[in-house]
Amino acid sequence: MTAATEADAMVRPERDLVARVRAGESIACARMMTWAERGDARFAAVYGEFESELGRARRIGITGPPGAGKSTLVERLATHWRAQERTIGIVAVDPSSPFSGGALLGDRVRMSSLALDKGVFIRSMATRGVFGGLARATDDLADVLDLYDRDDILLETVGVGQSEVDVARSTDLTLVVLHPGGGDTIQAMKAGLMEVADVYVVNKADMPGLEQLVHQLTDTLDVRDVPLDERPPILTTVASSGEGVAELAERIDALDAERRASGKRDARRAANLRLRVRRIVEGRLQHDIWQESGLARTLDERVADGRTLSAYGLADEILNAYRERRNLEGPA
Amino acid sequence: MTAATEADAMVRPERDLVARVRAGESIACARMMTWAERGDARFAAVYGEFESELGRARRIGITGPPGAGKSTLVERLATHWRAQERTIGIVAVDPSSPFSGGALLGDRVRMSSLALDKGVFIRSMATRGVFGGLARATDDLADVLDLYDRDDILLETVGVGQSEVDVARSTDLTLVVLHPGGGDTIQAMKAGLMEVADVYVVNKADMPGLEQLVHQLTDTLDVRDVPLDERPPILTTVASSGEGVAELAERIDALDAERRASGKRDARRAANLRLRVRRIVEGRLQHDIWQESGLARTLDERVADGRTLSAYGLADEILNAYRERRNLEGPA
Repeated sequence: MTAATEADAMVRPERDLVARVRAGESIACARMMTWAERGDARFAAVYGEFESELGRARRIGITGPPGAGKSTLVERLATHWRAQERTIGIVAVDPSSPFSGGALLGDRVRMSSLALDKGVFIRSMATRGVFGGLARATDDLADVLDLYDRDDILLETVGVGQSEVDVARSTDLTLVVLHPGGGDTIQAMKAGLMEVADVYVVNKADMPGLEQLVHQLTDTLDVRDVPLDERPPILTTVASSGEGVAELAERIDALDAERRASGKRDARRAANLRLRVRRIVEGRLQHDIWQESGLARTLDERVADGRTLSAYGLADEILNAYRERRNLEGPA
Repeated sequence: MTAATEADAMVRPERDLVARVRAGESIACARMMTWAERGDARFAAVYGEFESELGRARRIGITGPPGAGKSTLVERLATHWRAQERTIGIVAVDPSSPFSGGALLGDRVRMSSLALDKGVFIRSMATRGVFGGLARATDDLADVLDLYDRDDILLETVGVGQSEVDVARSTDLTLVVLHPGGGDTIQAMKAGLMEVADVYVVNKADMPGLEQLVHQLTDTLDVRDVPLDERPPILTTVASSGEGVAELAERIDALDAERRASGKRDARRAANLRLRVRRIVEGRLQHDIWQESGLARTLDERVADGRTLSAYGLADEILNAYRERRNLEGPA
């Protein structure tokens, strides 16, 4: 894209944006994602124009503890599906700073072999300072990629932490990636990863400790008394060399096809929708009370005057003020 | 405590609970913590009776990636301060399952050497299903321990993930515990741990890779351009043998004394209060919309009828219904 075209793209009316994303214009896709990430009201405003077209793309979560090799695996899976002419969207949720909002030491374009392929759209997202929470934003970014006509949407996220696990849940299918020798495996499993796994991937399978990890996984499934036919399969890969990746991709294809046929995928999407609506509603209420009603400022002033240090007393004050203001304004 | 006394304790009027916690009755302390954890309205109701007494205890966060040896370090620090006749409260935030709400493979009383000491009160908390979020609950548990007249309150939490890092922030002082050879160190730092650290503890300092990790830490502080006199100190420990723990404890004592004197501690407490009030308000609003207003059920029904899959459309419906109901009821 020339500089002139790019500048032109920036000034075109917003109402065209949906059509431009639909037509596969990458700059429009990136722009709509920025709206989504920031919780820009324009995203919600245009959502109605395309919502009925959504749901075509396959959404796959890739999660696991740090160091498991998730990014490399994502790169390999994307390459596998690209070879079948499938288009790919990747959202990589980067850990970032809670105070500065910026990623530290972040290598934002790690998936370099894919970066020049127009069939692959990569978006990196900070975990902090995202309006309305991580999972809310990830859902919206995935919708944009769906509208952008991607066949597969891969959501990569660190699988330790409450918000991060939420991201892994809002998919059609989730891989939990572990690696041998990581002392943090059991911890990662305790952090809720056991339940979000549709497939276990033991990556770095050429490292010592493979059998031990597979036994550990099997034992944990035994302890939890998961019926044999409902157990997530355990597959092994060496993402760095590509070993086992084709088998993994084919297993995902088969599992997804089976779930579409059985109605399981639709049931999961309904459950995801319920959680998603909750997140949107809560995000809006928060915006309403703190920004719209100006109570963030009131709170700052009340804390600064130092006359009370009562958390619950202040909370009552703020809530009463909010309700009064809301009632004066009448129903929205 | 005999069974009779225990039964008696359970039926005594709730209004005595504050006095009983204040008097050092452990069963009352545990009970009030349960109220706090569940977001029971009785906690907020009695809060006004003791809020003015709070703030005496020192609140110390211990966080870091899984496998860094945080629990062992907490045990050692507690033992150190116990030898000085200080009373200790420990809140260990366990990773747990997002679906079942229960901890998996959890060893809830890990700190066995302290378990029989009446000067140590240990509480383990799940990370999931906690009403109003992890940080909200942890703040309240710490308040109960403060009322219970603990000198030091140690909050242990896994330092990967947004909610978990929030817990680490709501303290007077936070240790970030790392260990050599953990491939996840840089990842942990990216996840926001750099900014919450008041002291870095490189634990398992007898393992290979110590120097490399210390260099890595120093380099990261260089890159971030932190002035030399504001850099968190880096201390090394071997918690399993106790090596370096006394020095660490003394450094914490000195740092805390310095911050009290300079007013930095009060400034931090004001900032923490602001965040805490936000969390309480948001938790109440959520309870109000989903439970009180019955809209959780409305949402379930709307998703189940399958006529719309529009997340933003449903969110609008729910918010409008909420505002209508609120206005009909008048101000709270």
